[in-house]
Amino acid sequence: MDIKNELSVRAESAQDVVCRFLPDVEGLQGIIFDAMEYGVTAGGKRLRPILMNETFQLFGGTGDVIEPFMAAIEMIHTYSLIHDDLPAMDNDALRRGKPTVHVAYGEAMGVLAGDALLNYAFETALNAYDADVDVVRVTEAMRILARKAGVFGMIGGQVVDVEAEKKQLDMTEDRLHFIYELKTGALIEASMMIGAVLAGASEEQVSLVESVAGKIGMAFQIQDDILDIEGDEAKLGKPIGSDKKNEKCTYVTFAGIEKSKEEVKRLTDEAVEELNSLDNHNEFLNELLKYLVYRDN
Amino acid sequence: MDIKNELSVRAESAQDVVCRFLPDVEGLQGIIFDAMEYGVTAGGKRLRPILMNETFQLFGGTGDVIEPFMAAIEMIHTYSLIHDDLPAMDNDALRRGKPTVHVAYGEAMGVLAGDALLNYAFETALNAYDADVDVVRVTEAMRILARKAGVFGMIGGQVVDVEAEKKQLDMTEDRLHFIYELKTGALIEASMMIGAVLAGASEEQVSLVESVAGKIGMAFQIQDDILDIEGDEAKLGKPIGSDKKNEKCTYVTFAGIEKSKEEVKRLTDEAVEELNSLDNHNEFLNELLKYLVYRDN
Repeated sequence: MDIKNELSVRAESAQDVVCRFLPDVEGLQGIIFDAMEYGVTAGGKRLRPILMNETFQLFGGTGDVIEPFMAAIEMIHTYSLIHDDLPAMDNDALRRGKPTVHVAYGEAMGVLAGDALLNYAFETALNAYDADVDVVRVTEAMRILARKAGVFGMIGGQVVDVEAEKKQLDMTEDRLHFIYELKTGALIEASMMIGAVLAGASEEQVSLVESVAGKIGMAFQIQDDILDIEGDEAKLGKPIGSDKKNEKCTYVTFAGIEKSKEEVKRLTDEAVEELNSLDNHNEFLNELLKYLVYRDN
Repeated sequence: MDIKNELSVRAESAQDVVCRFLPDVEGLQGIIFDAMEYGVTAGGKRLRPILMNETFQLFGGTGDVIEPFMAAIEMIHTYSLIHDDLPAMDNDALRRGKPTVHVAYGEAMGVLAGDALLNYAFETALNAYDADVDVVRVTEAMRILARKAGVFGMIGGQVVDVEAEKKQLDMTEDRLHFIYELKTGALIEASMMIGAVLAGASEEQVSLVESVAGKIGMAFQIQDDILDIEGDEAKLGKPIGSDKKNEKCTYVTFAGIEKSKEEVKRLTDEAVEELNSLDNHNEFLNELLKYLVYRDN
């Protein structure tokens, strides 16, 4: 399987889904529609909607109930990047080589575009109630989305990350684990769990998928730390060594590079093994999980 | 009826409801729980949850399905104030005499506390699905909440307001109307509509309530403009003349003070008359609508 090619086909189709749900109307508030679209279409691998859809397929899901949630999870991911880039947070002027939203539209509009995408994510996900699917499943998916994006999920991780970066907290291994688990892991867990829930997976299956996603999220983040030291700048498309330069405490700081690599392997092997313990099988999803963590970019 | 006293009893009970739904746990992300609570308990009349609950009563609603939504609407109102106060927006250091969230907790935490409250509003509202009420009603209430808070509601109004304040747009009467209708009106509409929907009001009744709320929201905002010129500083608890000082274009700028007062009276009379055209009756709600617009503080 040419995983890179398969992935890019799916990324394009996921982006189409997301864009189809964005507001497409005229209005005095038109600039916010522009800023939302600018943020969403600024690139990215669309991993979350892809993981969601593939997990949905894994459990035999059919129909379009998944689409509003694919759009919603990508909107939430995008809003988090927009707010993350704000001057009050990481103060980044560029993302994937393009001016960040607050640079392109002004700082106030950066705050509002993030707010708008978060709100619109829920507005969009609610469309799933129109699909011909048990409302209990849709409501469970809504709850997962809200919880994993919020203070017990992504925002919670972001809070501790910000505090550590502003040196209001010392970084410890426990705190780093908490940040990785929530800031990166929670939305990946949400993606796969929502796919499973909407397809009608059992509670046990959803738990298993949560565990798989958690391990993949963690391995993905540790691999990021490794690539920042050993990566190939040409392949990464960005300079390496930024963590060291920013005196950023990463997994490698605590565990060293060899143990970090072992951990990536252990987590990935366990995740793939858990996934394969299911009766259901999705070849692409299996390949994707390995690709995500053993990637070089 | 001693409306001020009745109102303050209900405000206290509404605040209890909101606080009961806030996260009450320990965690590494504890500071965000503090910031959320700080924002929510910083005072305020709790008009939105009160209007919601009174409209729920008006249509004979019973049980606790209303409570998650009362909490959610106040969380959304609070997040909008927190983000509004940020340096990138209005840059206000004080609100109701207390340091604003970003002053008390830092700017990054101001952004995150707003995000957290918006997300948590939806997380909280989803609790209504546990109540013994038709899921169709709860889903309709969720949709109203999301739409009226978002780009077609409050955020949409905020966007145009910000653009006008940054002088990227000239203020016109149309634009001012749009801002008042969305920035202030939309959440008041949502409050009353959600109360009606959850109590089982008909589509026509919900439309009528939306119209009543829209008029009250508009009258409320125009009264604000009038009080900034003619108000009694002691009663208002803040200096008057701030709109003029900030060269802010208000309803009075376009219509003059006499026509503005007439408009407040016309809108309020119409709203109360519409409300009284219903078979249902809620004396307190009637008094509240008049009090809101004919207030001196």
